[in-house]
Amino acid sequence: MIVVMKPGASKSQIQHVVHLIREYGLKEHIIHGTDRTVVACLGDKRAADKGAIENAPMVEKVVPILAPYKMASLEVKKDKTQIPIGADKFLLGGTKIGVIAGPCAVESRDQILQTARQAAEAGCIGLRGGAYKPRTSPYSYQGLGTEGLKLLAEARRQTGLAVVTEVVGLEQIEQVCEYADVLQIGARNMQHYPLLEAVGHTQKPVLLKRGMSASLDEFLLAAEYIINAGNPHVILCERGIRTFEAYVRNTLSLAIIPALRERTHLPIVIDPSHGTGYAYMVPSMCLAAVAAGADGLIIECHPDPQRAVSDGAQSITPDILKGLMEKIRKVAQAVDRDV
Amino acid sequence: MIVVMKPGASKSQIQHVVHLIREYGLKEHIIHGTDRTVVACLGDKRAADKGAIENAPMVEKVVPILAPYKMASLEVKKDKTQIPIGADKFLLGGTKIGVIAGPCAVESRDQILQTARQAAEAGCIGLRGGAYKPRTSPYSYQGLGTEGLKLLAEARRQTGLAVVTEVVGLEQIEQVCEYADVLQIGARNMQHYPLLEAVGHTQKPVLLKRGMSASLDEFLLAAEYIINAGNPHVILCERGIRTFEAYVRNTLSLAIIPALRERTHLPIVIDPSHGTGYAYMVPSMCLAAVAAGADGLIIECHPDPQRAVSDGAQSITPDILKGLMEKIRKVAQAVDRDV
Amino acid sequence: MIVVMKPGASKSQIQHVVHLIREYGLKEHIIHGTDRTVVACLGDKRAADKGAIENAPMVEKVVPILAPYKMASLEVKKDKTQIPIGADKFLLGGTKIGVIAGPCAVESRDQILQTARQAAEAGCIGLRGGAYKPRTSPYSYQGLGTEGLKLLAEARRQTGLAVVTEVVGLEQIEQVCEYADVLQIGARNMQHYPLLEAVGHTQKPVLLKRGMSASLDEFLLAAEYIINAGNPHVILCERGIRTFEAYVRNTLSLAIIPALRERTHLPIVIDPSHGTGYAYMVPSMCLAAVAAGADGLIIECHPDPQRAVSDGAQSITPDILKGLMEKIRKVAQAVDRDV
Amino acid sequence: MIVVMKPGASKSQIQHVVHLIREYGLKEHIIHGTDRTVVACLGDKRAADKGAIENAPMVEKVVPILAPYKMASLEVKKDKTQIPIGADKFLLGGTKIGVIAGPCAVESRDQILQTARQAAEAGCIGLRGGAYKPRTSPYSYQGLGTEGLKLLAEARRQTGLAVVTEVVGLEQIEQVCEYADVLQIGARNMQHYPLLEAVGHTQKPVLLKRGMSASLDEFLLAAEYIINAGNPHVILCERGIRTFEAYVRNTLSLAIIPALRERTHLPIVIDPSHGTGYAYMVPSMCLAAVAAGADGLIIECHPDPQRAVSDGAQSITPDILKGLMEKIRKVAQAVDRDV
Repeated sequence: MIVVMKPGASKSQIQHVVHLIREYGLKEHIIHGTDRTVVACLGDKRAADKGAIENAPMVEKVVPILAPYKMASLEVKKDKTQIPIGADKFLLGGTKIGVIAGPCAVESRDQILQTARQAAEAGCIGLRGGAYKPRTSPYSYQGLGTEGLKLLAEARRQTGLAVVTEVVGLEQIEQVCEYADVLQIGARNMQHYPLLEAVGHTQKPVLLKRGMSASLDEFLLAAEYIINAGNPHVILCERGIRTFEAYVRNTLSLAIIPALRERTHLPIVIDPSHGTGYAYMVPSMCLAAVAAGADGLIIECHPDPQRAVSDGAQSITPDILKGLMEKIRKVAQAVDRDV
Repeated sequence: MIVVMKPGASKSQIQHVVHLIREYGLKEHIIHGTDRTVVACLGDKRAADKGAIENAPMVEKVVPILAPYKMASLEVKKDKTQIPIGADKFLLGGTKIGVIAGPCAVESRDQILQTARQAAEAGCIGLRGGAYKPRTSPYSYQGLGTEGLKLLAEARRQTGLAVVTEVVGLEQIEQVCEYADVLQIGARNMQHYPLLEAVGHTQKPVLLKRGMSASLDEFLLAAEYIINAGNPHVILCERGIRTFEAYVRNTLSLAIIPALRERTHLPIVIDPSHGTGYAYMVPSMCLAAVAAGADGLIIECHPDPQRAVSDGAQSITPDILKGLMEKIRKVAQAVDRDV
Repeated sequence: MIVVMKPGASKSQIQHVVHLIREYGLKEHIIHGTDRTVVACLGDKRAADKGAIENAPMVEKVVPILAPYKMASLEVKKDKTQIPIGADKFLLGGTKIGVIAGPCAVESRDQILQTARQAAEAGCIGLRGGAYKPRTSPYSYQGLGTEGLKLLAEARRQTGLAVVTEVVGLEQIEQVCEYADVLQIGARNMQHYPLLEAVGHTQKPVLLKRGMSASLDEFLLAAEYIINAGNPHVILCERGIRTFEAYVRNTLSLAIIPALRERTHLPIVIDPSHGTGYAYMVPSMCLAAVAAGADGLIIECHPDPQRAVSDGAQSITPDILKGLMEKIRKVAQAVDRDV
Repeated sequence: MIVVMKPGASKSQIQHVVHLIREYGLKEHIIHGTDRTVVACLGDKRAADKGAIENAPMVEKVVPILAPYKMASLEVKKDKTQIPIGADKFLLGGTKIGVIAGPCAVESRDQILQTARQAAEAGCIGLRGGAYKPRTSPYSYQGLGTEGLKLLAEARRQTGLAVVTEVVGLEQIEQVCEYADVLQIGARNMQHYPLLEAVGHTQKPVLLKRGMSASLDEFLLAAEYIINAGNPHVILCERGIRTFEAYVRNTLSLAIIPALRERTHLPIVIDPSHGTGYAYMVPSMCLAAVAAGADGLIIECHPDPQRAVSDGAQSITPDILKGLMEKIRKVAQAVDRDV
């Protein structure tokens, strides 16, 4: 941490800052520049809310130096984390790119089984589908609940696909763990800390979606919550951010792939469906994500998107998925990976 | 809802859209324009995910017409909701502006009692203070828990101030209800729907903070969840949004005050502390909020902000609060209100 | 400037950074922390593009310490700049708040003269109106040009109001200077540097609108261009920023008022019309801006907004302006100012 | 255009809106829904500022239906525009992807000739380099001017690369046309309409950079200005947008590629250097852009980025460019294109 004093700060004002720094268990190092005095703080106390020093007289700003997360960082673990997914122990984070597909919500037996079969044939490794749906409106479809989980498990038995499904509240975790291979934390729950801690106490891989306006630090700190609670199997999922752009539902920020590679060992999955909001954009964003180095994709796929109860506008059909997987394979191979 | 077809859409493609509309229980009304055919949909089915129609061939876009919320809207209730707060039944949403002040977190008996006394003397009606703290980092201070709730209750006994405190998870609601006058839902939980429903089952007023990138519709739908669950006493709290601006921690969007007035009967409270992130900006933003028509303010106030365990940079001292209340009163009177 | 090395940076890598720093004419100061080595740079070389050092091996980031502007800053000039406006030498930046009103575009003699008369009666000090209009579409109304300037001058003769009008290109400056009291630089031209320099060579006060996504530094650097070219009479005008919010055309960021006060001596004017995009929001945002400490307001006002050729949705009528001015006066007096 | 009335709008209020619509030369079509009356407007009058109708009593909102641009749209021209670049008449917008590389600013003869040679060897088709630089600070390096243009022309003679360089002001156009193959309009000038019209009067291809917060419509309307002035050779260049994200200088929005493909026939070039701001992110974003369907890339490349006078942090070296071009070729071939 660096404390920048305003020009004209007096000796006693600087000394006051030094006292505050020492109270935090840090050591000061004062630099008298041409325009400003700067107080560098030595020591590692990430947890303290050092912003408070900004409130001291004649302090201009406090600049953090260290990243606030540890266990998610490359400083602690240099080699990429590979996470075994499902019965086949597909290694997400390895050379092969893992594609997960499926509808937003489990709607019926036919819908989920048909989608699963076609996704498996196309070469996917996971089946997504919501049994418990967090919906913006209280009047919207809220999911089949337990019945949905059972249908997902049936689809797994028939296809071998790993089941990826969202856990919305603490009270569902036990039940969802019974049926799911991967627990999904939705974007709106990325900072619901009790939930992060609770999935951190399970042994299931967690697909953690970035909040739609979360900073990189906040995203990695959410992962840190899960790891810190005992579960190292966190998959980071970018699903687009909220910006001023109106031609997409979210702006898909693919530069997060190299940015995360610089900072963390955790695998990275891209969701081009929520990431754009429109089915016609999904194929090109899948290819872009793979070219940029994603470890996996999670794609909304529905046999009849025009009649989907949710996210129809951004769902592709199983037929389009099939052709897309061929293209994904080619691009993957062009960057020395595979599907 | 209006469905806009692409130019060149065929009769059968338009007819296909008409079929989809009818499946939703809506009635179509087709308009053949010079460049486009447009299909207007008659009927009120807010819950259906009509976006799915965007996936139909040759559909350019689907434009919603109705707001997705009902009970929070002026269409259902025209007069402003006034919510009795605390033992004194201060009517938030009435002529008088209610000011709530207090620290981010309850840290100690001295800290909270001193702040409460000075806030009461300054003319505040509520005391804020977190006992359970949702923190971005797992390594940060997490609050005093039950002990913090008891200290808040003690402060209420000494001062008569209503206690406003956050409820982070379902499992705390019962306990927090025992001690608090107003339940706060934090910005990060604005879309944690199980929590919204749970506070909707209580009888306590709920201060609902806008998520840092929530749209107006999402904000009012979160309120709708609470009202729909049985609790009409929702206070809308703007606390700033996330934008590209770096000179503030959040961008305080005061135009939300007239915007909400056009749409809802619920009272509006502004949080200038989170709304800016800097103590030096808080006074002018308090005055601006009152001039713009806010029903209340919630201000972070700490006897020693430089040593606060959280949000120190944005906390003002009780002394500054005192002077500020005088100015707030003057501005309030200038717009025909009072404190 | 502070250069933060990555953990594990070698001695020679740190030495390489030191060499680069010295090449810029700066002096290094090395701090070996527990996790990181940090190289502080001493000396004032604001112009150099020191970001380049980020490209050196094992550099994690470069943190600027000094603001990049000088003449616009409080470090160079501590007392508030007061700018005489129009024949009456109204001092913008003094105790009195200057209100400028008028249509987006000058459309006709009747329109501009009627608006001017009513604005003057209401207590305004300036008349806004575009003769040259920068329009998003090449098919939109482009303004009356010279004819518009003459009508503005006629309105000034009749009312005494100062004329505030936009200059879109270099080639118009001479002509606009003949008729205008204040030159307006539009938001879309905030970084058109040749234009900034050109108005910097005139003696006219310049109302500089913030670009819709300009940072504070960029805004003040645009002012610096004008001052640096010889014209110290720069008025900073906030007109809203582009964010994800859809209930407004722009998000009006009033915290910029205290933020600018901390950094600059230049007067601050708020444009609530562009700042929101809706006439119904303009009155409350005018009051909020005054309460927050604005030195002036610039308001779109049109005798028949429903038929305005541009910005009709955000224009208020002269009648509404009249009532609004009374309220503005009251709020101004509540914060020890006046209109 | 669709005018949505508020609930409770009276017959005469609806009739008033009908009158306004007719004044615009449009024909009304009234639909009485269950909750709202909606007035659809028939006819094509893109230029009128119909937003003004929002100011009429009991109007809730006005929803545009038609895109505001024409000549840039697929409705007017269905086949992709291919633009011949340089002496070799490379067809940008055809099967082959055109890569343009070079430094932010021309600094010296050695610098530009060396970069050009290595870029040509790597397989680039164009050389970028600024002779006139628009700089955020008046104290920053402003470019070599004419001397820079001459060096660019010399580099072209030696390598055959097409010269792409920015034109900042009207007064430079003639001179820049003498030396350049492609005129670049910078992001900060995307809405400087006099400049757009002026380059529209030349015969040179124009590389139009998207403003950092321009909407898709604004971007295409800027292109429309150029086409409308007589120059159909417009290349659309995405260079990142300004968002809340801090780990990048700009957020690179690659979904704009499929979005533009749906709307326009113009070729699309991606700038991953400004699009991210960091050299380490450039390679993966180049590959992503190609996978997503870009027609070209424009990359900042400098023989000694750590000493570049501008944009050093985001410039890659010619050596890295060389290896990158191999990877770009592979990804291009994977999506049935080539370099």
